[in-house]
Amino acid sequence: MIAKNMLALGTNRSVIRDLFEYGNQRAKEIGRENIYDFSLGNPSVPAPKEVENAIRAILDEEDPVAIHGYTSACGSEEARKAIAQDLNQRYHTCYSADELYLTCGAAASLISVLRALMTPETPEIICAAPFFPEYRCFVEANGGQFRTIPAQEGDFQIDFQQLENALSEKTTAFLINTPNNPSGAVYSEETLRTLAELLENKGREYHHPIYLISDEPYRELTYEGTAPFPASFYRNTVICYSYSKSLSLPGERIGYVLVPKEADSGEALLGAVAGAARASGYVCAPSLMQKVIAHCAEVRPNLEEYRKNRDLLYRELTQIGYQCVYPKGAFYLFVKAPNGDGNAFSELAKKFDLLLVPGESFGCKNYLRISYCVSHDMIQRSIPAFRAAFEKAQSEAQPGT
Amino acid sequence: MIAKNMLALGTNRSVIRDLFEYGNQRAKEIGRENIYDFSLGNPSVPAPKEVENAIRAILDEEDPVAIHGYTSACGSEEARKAIAQDLNQRYHTCYSADELYLTCGAAASLISVLRALMTPETPEIICAAPFFPEYRCFVEANGGQFRTIPAQEGDFQIDFQQLENALSEKTTAFLINTPNNPSGAVYSEETLRTLAELLENKGREYHHPIYLISDEPYRELTYEGTAPFPASFYRNTVICYSYSKSLSLPGERIGYVLVPKEADSGEALLGAVAGAARASGYVCAPSLMQKVIAHCAEVRPNLEEYRKNRDLLYRELTQIGYQCVYPKGAFYLFVKAPNGDGNAFSELAKKFDLLLVPGESFGCKNYLRISYCVSHDMIQRSIPAFRAAFEKAQSEAQPGT
Repeated sequence: MIAKNMLALGTNRSVIRDLFEYGNQRAKEIGRENIYDFSLGNPSVPAPKEVENAIRAILDEEDPVAIHGYTSACGSEEARKAIAQDLNQRYHTCYSADELYLTCGAAASLISVLRALMTPETPEIICAAPFFPEYRCFVEANGGQFRTIPAQEGDFQIDFQQLENALSEKTTAFLINTPNNPSGAVYSEETLRTLAELLENKGREYHHPIYLISDEPYRELTYEGTAPFPASFYRNTVICYSYSKSLSLPGERIGYVLVPKEADSGEALLGAVAGAARASGYVCAPSLMQKVIAHCAEVRPNLEEYRKNRDLLYRELTQIGYQCVYPKGAFYLFVKAPNGDGNAFSELAKKFDLLLVPGESFGCKNYLRISYCVSHDMIQRSIPAFRAAFEKAQSEAQPGT
Repeated sequence: MIAKNMLALGTNRSVIRDLFEYGNQRAKEIGRENIYDFSLGNPSVPAPKEVENAIRAILDEEDPVAIHGYTSACGSEEARKAIAQDLNQRYHTCYSADELYLTCGAAASLISVLRALMTPETPEIICAAPFFPEYRCFVEANGGQFRTIPAQEGDFQIDFQQLENALSEKTTAFLINTPNNPSGAVYSEETLRTLAELLENKGREYHHPIYLISDEPYRELTYEGTAPFPASFYRNTVICYSYSKSLSLPGERIGYVLVPKEADSGEALLGAVAGAARASGYVCAPSLMQKVIAHCAEVRPNLEEYRKNRDLLYRELTQIGYQCVYPKGAFYLFVKAPNGDGNAFSELAKKFDLLLVPGESFGCKNYLRISYCVSHDMIQRSIPAFRAAFEKAQSEAQPGT
């Protein structure tokens, strides 16, 4: 008498995790230096020095009862104020602390927003491929319906005809992730403007808003200028943020939800987010990390290492013959499988101890994700394996030549 | 189009929180020193020095990428090993690291276990009054049915006749909390032995186990010897633990679930716990705190301050005429309302700036909870207010005398 769906979620690990565990196993056999593991999106750059300095300063100066004590469910005012102030400076917005709800990271942010928005009348969340595979689990395990639209290959912007066809009265939100995991694509201003117009029109047609859930853990990881800020384009944007990637704190579980007051039913929605967080067992975001964020809200990541990795990989792989949209953000390259089948190519690549995540669970069967948050040295050493796998796929495709 | 149940949970805060906020408001009006706030269960004793030392040592010695990086979903092996070893030393058990799943605190532990156990066929969780009010929310907001049995007044052990009547084929678990919030009662060995026998028999009768969910955040807070360990009495015990109270880390959100391998479907249940954690957006427990626990699994709280508070309050209140079961653990006194109505007496007490939580939401309308995790000095200053409130209640009850 155990919940079957929970058992399935707990035992069928994600493809990414499976590949990662395979890599650990294989590393024991042939040595870590002989494995080219591009599976995980785990930041390889350490947290900025300001984070450590902040922790030490907090320990030196503050009362331990306050450092480690409960905060309000929505998070400490000092942290929320610091975040609002930083956003306002960068995006010319006028957010205040009471539009923010601190969370235990992006997954917690998303669960809270999804549970707040999905109702029996409006259970649908729409997402454009390619998308982070856990989205499906987050929606479906909490009573919603996850609908996807195909990727717009070529640039990984949005295919608006597909989106228009997918939207219905039962849609409560469109879920985006820009810069994108796994494609590295950044939605352009034009994309966001067109999107806002479509959602606004559809909301009027259905007599209820279609919210835009903007999952932004990679917001600060852009290599070609700042990414356009979705909330500046559409009033009904709910931001889900995490410091996992921008401050290299993925294990610390710290992030936030921002529901603008100007959004339709904004205040009620933030109340429902609080209720959903409570229903999911979130009491408050980790308290020491809240204090760290209050100190470091304006700290930006050092992207030089990721940029070097991207440039090297992109140059080498395209030279070999891999096809790939040039990634402007995040730390992923999303390449077309040279043999047209992501699963098959991932298996083939394993023979060269090259671990690439097949694109199927991201909604793109003929692609593979390469995480380049790894050491530059490993990338350099991996190039011959990339070449060999490519050539192997070519030769298998044309057995006669 | 917002989820109404989530909005209700987010906006109808708990009575405890309401009282606490009232206290903050009132403190602004008349000064903090004139408010006797006994509302919150927020540890007043700082985290043991070992916690700070551990944080500093980790920062000094370890790689920041590892300190703040993702761990396995179930938590780092070093932390799980340290916890298992500590339990084994104290309780002569033989737990191993792979029976443990680290969580973001007790609420996360409970949500994960509840979602893993509650099914359409077995949706029922039974709990004996008095109980922590959030239990109801955790069960009901996640599709379960929360059934309660009345308190066994006099000693707050379990009324087994009531429990037997309440158990049914639809019951998946009985949920206990010893030492208890709000009564401070500790279940005796006899209680746990009788309980084990009843659950074992009923499980046989229903052809499925009735699990015992043992919520143990106060395990280490006992003043009269060690509390009997429920898992030693009943094989199908699932432990939900938190370091919030024992290490004074309530804001850090760190705890664990332990599902013994010897429990019926133990391995599958732990898998479902992992799935439920995933479905609720828990990626891993906060990573720095996992490392702290690996260092501090054997550290025990210093209880002298709480003990002094308990002794003073118990002596003074019973002398005034309040009736109260002598609390052997936790940091609460659960007193009978002198006027027979917890809500009315809480209101009356407010007139003396004395903040006591009415017992209704704990399942005991004629009681009040007094949290004594406060300064000893405030308790001393509050005694006249307790006396005045008592006398006021007496005089209102007998207006003619």
